[in-house]
Amino acid sequence: MNPTDKENKIKSVNGGVCAALGFYAGGIYCGIRKNRTKKDLALVYSDTPAHAAAVYTRNLVKGAPLLVSKEHIDGGDISAIICNSGNANTCNANGKEVAEQTCKLLADALGISEKAVVVASTGVIGQPLDITPIAKGIPALVSELSRDGFAAAQAIMTTDTMEKQVAVEFEIGGKTCRLGGMAKGSGMIHPDMATMLVFLTTDVCISPAMLKKALKTDVDSTFNMLSVDGDTSTNDMAVLLANGKAGNAEITEENDDFAVFMCALNTVNVALSRMIAGDGEGATKLLECETTGAKDLATAKTAAKSVVCSSLFKAAMFGADANWGRVLCALGYSGADLDISKIDVTFRSDAGEIVVCKQGFGVDFSEEKAKEILSRNEITVLVNLNDGAYSATAWGCDLTYDYVRINGDYRT
Amino acid sequence: MNPTDKENKIKSVNGGVCAALGFYAGGIYCGIRKNRTKKDLALVYSDTPAHAAAVYTRNLVKGAPLLVSKEHIDGGDISAIICNSGNANTCNANGKEVAEQTCKLLADALGISEKAVVVASTGVIGQPLDITPIAKGIPALVSELSRDGFAAAQAIMTTDTMEKQVAVEFEIGGKTCRLGGMAKGSGMIHPDMATMLVFLTTDVCISPAMLKKALKTDVDSTFNMLSVDGDTSTNDMAVLLANGKAGNAEITEENDDFAVFMCALNTVNVALSRMIAGDGEGATKLLECETTGAKDLATAKTAAKSVVCSSLFKAAMFGADANWGRVLCALGYSGADLDISKIDVTFRSDAGEIVVCKQGFGVDFSEEKAKEILSRNEITVLVNLNDGAYSATAWGCDLTYDYVRINGDYRT
Repeated sequence: MNPTDKENKIKSVNGGVCAALGFYAGGIYCGIRKNRTKKDLALVYSDTPAHAAAVYTRNLVKGAPLLVSKEHIDGGDISAIICNSGNANTCNANGKEVAEQTCKLLADALGISEKAVVVASTGVIGQPLDITPIAKGIPALVSELSRDGFAAAQAIMTTDTMEKQVAVEFEIGGKTCRLGGMAKGSGMIHPDMATMLVFLTTDVCISPAMLKKALKTDVDSTFNMLSVDGDTSTNDMAVLLANGKAGNAEITEENDDFAVFMCALNTVNVALSRMIAGDGEGATKLLECETTGAKDLATAKTAAKSVVCSSLFKAAMFGADANWGRVLCALGYSGADLDISKIDVTFRSDAGEIVVCKQGFGVDFSEEKAKEILSRNEITVLVNLNDGAYSATAWGCDLTYDYVRINGDYRT
Repeated sequence: MNPTDKENKIKSVNGGVCAALGFYAGGIYCGIRKNRTKKDLALVYSDTPAHAAAVYTRNLVKGAPLLVSKEHIDGGDISAIICNSGNANTCNANGKEVAEQTCKLLADALGISEKAVVVASTGVIGQPLDITPIAKGIPALVSELSRDGFAAAQAIMTTDTMEKQVAVEFEIGGKTCRLGGMAKGSGMIHPDMATMLVFLTTDVCISPAMLKKALKTDVDSTFNMLSVDGDTSTNDMAVLLANGKAGNAEITEENDDFAVFMCALNTVNVALSRMIAGDGEGATKLLECETTGAKDLATAKTAAKSVVCSSLFKAAMFGADANWGRVLCALGYSGADLDISKIDVTFRSDAGEIVVCKQGFGVDFSEEKAKEILSRNEITVLVNLNDGAYSATAWGCDLTYDYVRINGDYRT
């Protein structure tokens, strides 16, 4: 689908995780956190069992909730997702037990099987998670279910400064379909390690195999191209539920309908990726590195990621310093097989764009103009490798005093 | 050689890069920098041509001086090293030409071949390096040569807060030998990317092949186990000169003499590595991660490096926060094949030590005691993998507000 087609066919709508038919959500404070003004328990419910696909952290240390959720998702359809913030339930001897109890309690309250529940946790690790506030909170949480995803998007936040929701509408086989989601980004609580959680819902009718294929494929060019500080959490998870209520003919192969679905999924995931990067801990700027002219996709991706992951580059962007040498340096150690003497670098923002490096060497440029461009809160670094036809985009954020403050605080 | 033998045989001495017989050094301000109070040109000279070994950055972007130095070192013996700070002479169209001119000017002043000169530069990249101040400065630099390495160690500094020198004395075949060195660590000027430069000198008589073997082997467990911010510079280089003036029988194979030499080299390189890490940009603490019980050396190294490279762990250490979950998290994503359920973690400093994690789960510990331990300026994290007999050590530093300040400043 070309960009114009995409614009015509994928329309932004409200509703987040509840935009799709048949999905309900809620979020409450149940008492896991000490701070009563911050919600800590979220629920997403589909009134029709949904096919589910998920991707999980590659960290060898995996949170207990991930292990339980994986069993349930591998076992069949899912009706609900429950997620607490304030405690990651990871590296605890009784972690799996508590995650299973949570599923059981929610299943009983909703009248569904505990195998139809996905459970997620985010927060401090290595501190036992008490089931008591969760058990007490579940009835209230269930009674608060509504067609509004806002409270749920708030309840999964840790040091996120804003809730992250997005949804789109599109047509498949003459039927109007919706896909929406919510995410929590790299925030610390208490503080502890960053966790990225993404919960996506759609009413598209699609086979479990194609749903899995769609998520796995898209994540490689969206959430896997995102870095806040290079630390891979123990609790990362992205889940996509599809309940089929849009009534389209089931997507079972890579046809035009699948292409439209992929396009909708990509639109939502890119939007959430940008929100997560822009709201990285202490961040003042969203950084986007776009590589073009790569000889293959892997090269394009490796190069783009290396730039947004460089602490030196991130600190320079915080200072609005057009230090393009750091871009070249990060490309040089990325591990990608690049011809440095072909590389052009341009900085761009809504204040304009400026070429700073041609064929691996610096060019004269106005420092004043560069500073103006880099002072905006969304910066794109364009890296043309001039070596082929592949491109990629990676997202990150600047490195600021506040990142250090947030992560250097004492746990209390 | 066991630790007691090492203690008896390797003795710390003064003199740095001039501790070994026949080596002279000097450092001056020649005008590359605007700030006249900071030296910017250093020279090391051996009155007898020395065998030379070197290791270079793995960054695909390589500074022009590295390319010239490599040609000279590959070509035969070396008599002098010239190094400027204030400009990295990298990514400039005329970089190689300027580096070659520098060698030629120095060679003429010293009456040696230009092929016997090693040239190095550190500082901002992408800004042409003017040969004029270097050409003017060389006569003064040569006239200031003395048996004191201090001025040279100062002249290679960028944002380093202290000069880094170390030297040892030991005996080979009844002859007293010396090995010393100086380094500059990860400092920014202007600012630009971190560069690590190490210049080592010895009067040991050793064949070029064995010298190369010694340096390459040792660097893998010293400078290659060092990280300040994960960014690999374009200008990193470590050079080891051996002029044979100690008069020992030439070392030509892996015998007992070679073992003593390796031990001396390791002592010097570990000391310089610790100095570089502890003086990382904005650092308030030296962090050391010691992994034991690994099933092989690669696993031990990968695990140790991942911990000292984690931004989250580094920020926690800045805050003296015993957040051991971040240690486990960094081990989990290190890429090493680990059994998390076997891992024990202990924090140690000169205030004592405290076990915080056993077999992958948290244990009760005194937060007060942990805070006291982590408030010192040298912290060791002991990670016992309980899975074999291999160990490794990696060095890094905490992540502080000042790192961001130093690297976010405008270039002016």
